[in-house]
Amino acid sequence: MSEGAKSLKVAVLGCGAVGSQVVRLLTEQADDLTARVGAPVELVGVAVRRLDAPRDVEVPEGLLTTDATGLVSRDDVDLVVEVIGGIEPARSLILAALENGASVVTANKALLAEDGPTLFEAAAKAERDLYYEAAVAGAIPILRPLRESLAGDKVTRVLGIVNGTTNFILDKMDSSGAGFSEALEEAQQLGYAEADPTADVEGFDAAAKAAILASLAFHSRVTASDVYREGISEVTAADVASARDMGSVVKLLAICELRPGPHGDQVAARVHPAMIPRSHPLASVREAYNAVFVESEAAGQLMFYGPGAGGAPTASAVLGDLVTVARNRLAGTRGAGESAYADRAVQPMGETRTRYHVAIDVDDRAGVLAAVANAFADHDVSIQTVRQEGRGADAQLVVVSHAASDAALSATVDQLRNMDIVREVTSVMRVEGGDE
Amino acid sequence: MSEGAKSLKVAVLGCGAVGSQVVRLLTEQADDLTARVGAPVELVGVAVRRLDAPRDVEVPEGLLTTDATGLVSRDDVDLVVEVIGGIEPARSLILAALENGASVVTANKALLAEDGPTLFEAAAKAERDLYYEAAVAGAIPILRPLRESLAGDKVTRVLGIVNGTTNFILDKMDSSGAGFSEALEEAQQLGYAEADPTADVEGFDAAAKAAILASLAFHSRVTASDVYREGISEVTAADVASARDMGSVVKLLAICELRPGPHGDQVAARVHPAMIPRSHPLASVREAYNAVFVESEAAGQLMFYGPGAGGAPTASAVLGDLVTVARNRLAGTRGAGESAYADRAVQPMGETRTRYHVAIDVDDRAGVLAAVANAFADHDVSIQTVRQEGRGADAQLVVVSHAASDAALSATVDQLRNMDIVREVTSVMRVEGGDE
Repeated sequence: MSEGAKSLKVAVLGCGAVGSQVVRLLTEQADDLTARVGAPVELVGVAVRRLDAPRDVEVPEGLLTTDATGLVSRDDVDLVVEVIGGIEPARSLILAALENGASVVTANKALLAEDGPTLFEAAAKAERDLYYEAAVAGAIPILRPLRESLAGDKVTRVLGIVNGTTNFILDKMDSSGAGFSEALEEAQQLGYAEADPTADVEGFDAAAKAAILASLAFHSRVTASDVYREGISEVTAADVASARDMGSVVKLLAICELRPGPHGDQVAARVHPAMIPRSHPLASVREAYNAVFVESEAAGQLMFYGPGAGGAPTASAVLGDLVTVARNRLAGTRGAGESAYADRAVQPMGETRTRYHVAIDVDDRAGVLAAVANAFADHDVSIQTVRQEGRGADAQLVVVSHAASDAALSATVDQLRNMDIVREVTSVMRVEGGDE
Repeated sequence: MSEGAKSLKVAVLGCGAVGSQVVRLLTEQADDLTARVGAPVELVGVAVRRLDAPRDVEVPEGLLTTDATGLVSRDDVDLVVEVIGGIEPARSLILAALENGASVVTANKALLAEDGPTLFEAAAKAERDLYYEAAVAGAIPILRPLRESLAGDKVTRVLGIVNGTTNFILDKMDSSGAGFSEALEEAQQLGYAEADPTADVEGFDAAAKAAILASLAFHSRVTASDVYREGISEVTAADVASARDMGSVVKLLAICELRPGPHGDQVAARVHPAMIPRSHPLASVREAYNAVFVESEAAGQLMFYGPGAGGAPTASAVLGDLVTVARNRLAGTRGAGESAYADRAVQPMGETRTRYHVAIDVDDRAGVLAAVANAFADHDVSIQTVRQEGRGADAQLVVVSHAASDAALSATVDQLRNMDIVREVTSVMRVEGGDE
């Protein structure tokens, strides 16, 4: 430690998988942090729910407290790290910390996606930093590149695998042919999925991250409720096999795009399973890894890849923010705040242009292909490819469309379902990552 | 433009492939930049060698000048962008700009790798920013993540494909079976290699980038002369075929590692062709793309991928820096300066632990394998695999070693070359990216 330098005092809220790694790194890397920040960074308190809970790190004597509100209200706390998660009490504690003059680092994607503007406004009013790199894609530095590195460019598209649990399940279904339930069970046994997997498998977690990515990429306020969301619980082994036949793989994608609208560019943000070609860089993202693909006008295509979750990786992202925020604090300044100047409208999902892959069991007789093609034509949906496979008395048609409005595609599928010659629409899935 | 806000005045030095794109983006994105910076960013001059040279952008009337020294000495210039390249006059101009109170953004890897400390000290003395994201891997945000996102973590290894020309050539050799000269010629025809390709194919460009990456990753001063360097001009079609037989591919890698030394961790930095397994994320980096793989203690393995060169991508990185530097300027502050606190020694290449792939034409008679194995054993080099292929009167042995000091491996190869039973050592190449 540089002698005489006044230390920066850090309070950590939460000491679970991430919090315990933050505490460990703060202690083990103390000398490094001092050198990087320019002053010692001192842990002054760790708020937990129960003092006697088992935890992965030895918290120094006397630092544990169950009084989180008291901790963030202390006069001497400069920096607050919030790794409790969830909406409350996290929101009240962050707001209290900012009001009390502390800068805040958080990993709380759910809170940011639901009520980010309240937090950003509180930070702006208090003239304090609010950083949250760890909220999206764990250790992968993606928010800082979007906020800063690409600040002089125009981002047009962000396409990401941002949920490790669903990627593990889909990867397992692809490699073993397993169904969803079987793959979920294996993920739960290995600790990749929680006992109640809803937030992950139904896409809520990915939708929160999509809202954060879209806000940063397009300088607009996008909340989780603006993001169209479909999970993976309906994805079948047949869908995955059908993707394989097409040289594709099924991934749960978070897609944020800038799309022309009636009054300038709009934001389209959605989370759903989709087929992508195996040659696409995102197709090779295996197991619980995350990756985010960014397209911008000048930089072209960039990809960021790494562990999307886990205590230590997420803590690495928290510490990176902590160093920046601490440096700003010492310099008496703050980093770039929220940038929502573009204030773009959100495009409704029905107007968003996507492509569909539709597998249909039909009667095997003359005129069937023409009838199916007509159903697409009725809704002005152009067909890219049709593959027909006879199998005894019935046949299977696999149709891949060109890009059309999601509403038109959805109406086409409804019409197909009502046709006499159609026995069953066995698979409907969006297609991404290829030519439109 | 926000009315009344004082504008920040930018001078651009150089108007070639990168400079012309910087000028274009400054003009086209002016409103966006104003919103992101908080004040208008105004282009006040562009220094060029010849006023009448053809260029890719229409420079606004009256801004072109051949007097670069005069431009950086102007009282009203806040920010200087240096995209001339090379050592002089770039160095003198950057130093003059800093001394004159301007902040500087540069893409000049050669200068930073040769004489970075002089520039960093000048920036520190002038209390101005010196940013250089565009100097390594074009548009890929890699320096900012190393400087900031991973600032609370401990980076242990950086492994990158950071030269697009050599990657194009090696990719071509791999996909078509072409020899080096033939692939180079194609790269030159397509504009991926210059008429004098020395800086690229002999690894000088990659070594400069390795020095910059190692300095940032390990908080030490590493210059180009500290980096061991071998180019790709000696890589043969047989080497590439041999790699293919092993399920590997040949890439020119920049490798920066933290290695235990007698007085604490040392920095090892090297650039050379190496075989990596096709399953490694870097193996699938095609054509002129770049990618950088980073390993750190807490974050684990991260990868950053994108276009490593080109006017527009490089300009995107320059503009990202420009926004940050302009914001700092408005706030009356500066970003984190050079961080060289760790001051680590550089490990000599001979002591660096690597693995070798050696292909040897030998007499096909009993005892040959034992004799070759003894040569490795004489230097305490452990063999991982040997493959023997008889072909008439002679045979080929392909040996892959475990990790050993580069000096021991090199001595082993010397000894092999002097053995009677060895007709020729046909291929020697380092092996990376697998188990040691």
